[in-house]
Amino acid sequence: MKQMAEHSYDQVRSLSLEEVIGDVVDLQLDKSGISIFEIREEHVFSKTLIARGHYVFAQANSLAIAVINEEIALTSSADIRFLRQVRLGEKCIAKAYVRSIAGQKGKAKVEVFTYVADEMVFQGNFVIYRSAGELT
Amino acid sequence: MKQMAEHSYDQVRSLSLEEVIGDVVDLQLDKSGISIFEIREEHVFSKTLIARGHYVFAQANSLAIAVINEEIALTSSADIRFLRQVRLGEKCIAKAYVRSIAGQKGKAKVEVFTYVADEMVFQGNFVIYRSAGELT
Repeated sequence: MKQMAEHSYDQVRSLSLEEVIGDVVDLQLDKSGISIFEIREEHVFSKTLIARGHYVFAQANSLAIAVINEEIALTSSADIRFLRQVRLGEKCIAKAYVRSIAGQKGKAKVEVFTYVADEMVFQGNFVIYRSAGELT
Repeated sequence: MKQMAEHSYDQVRSLSLEEVIGDVVDLQLDKSGISIFEIREEHVFSKTLIARGHYVFAQANSLAIAVINEEIALTSSADIRFLRQVRLGEKCIAKAYVRSIAGQKGKAKVEVFTYVADEMVFQGNFVIYRSAGELT
């Protein structure tokens, strides 16, 4: 049963699984992925207990890379919006969708939406460089 | 002499100094700031020794917040580009410039350029929400 569960979705190729910020709960390479990241004390501003933007970004960015079906993938650019503050203890559910793949060495477009419950807290459009050809 | 050195630039107001990713070496509130961040092993992809994008982002994002002359400031949106890969051991010098302030509760625009030596490796346009009025 454990093995079945482990293989119910694709394996990450572009980075080590422990390099993904958050827990990957679904992954269809070059299609979509979902991860969950809980905001803990080390992720918030001490004054306000509001999550620091770069952690919310890191979850989305690493998921955008994880969905790419290449040995190596790197962020080229991103256009991001923080829609509402995320607070200590909240669980961020990030959903990534690959919108275009554009060939072996090209750039892929990945859109990521992050929710707390059913409320969208972050949205990002990432351009990911599929750089296997140049780096290996 | 130590005290003089400590006060040769403005103090960060919007977050704790230790919450800035990188070392702040110059800060003129609501004008500009400079920080230096060295890429160490914990910041790179294990496969390639290339810096993970969210650390380069975190340096720029936290500096964009640090330059704001408010008790609380949060990222609203950003438009970022990774111009070349940053490698293990390289020192990233981020320079932030406040382009518009737009009132006490409004949004400030901050542009950040990050260099390794004289080569630009990252550029970001941040919109920072000056939210002191709503959060305190």
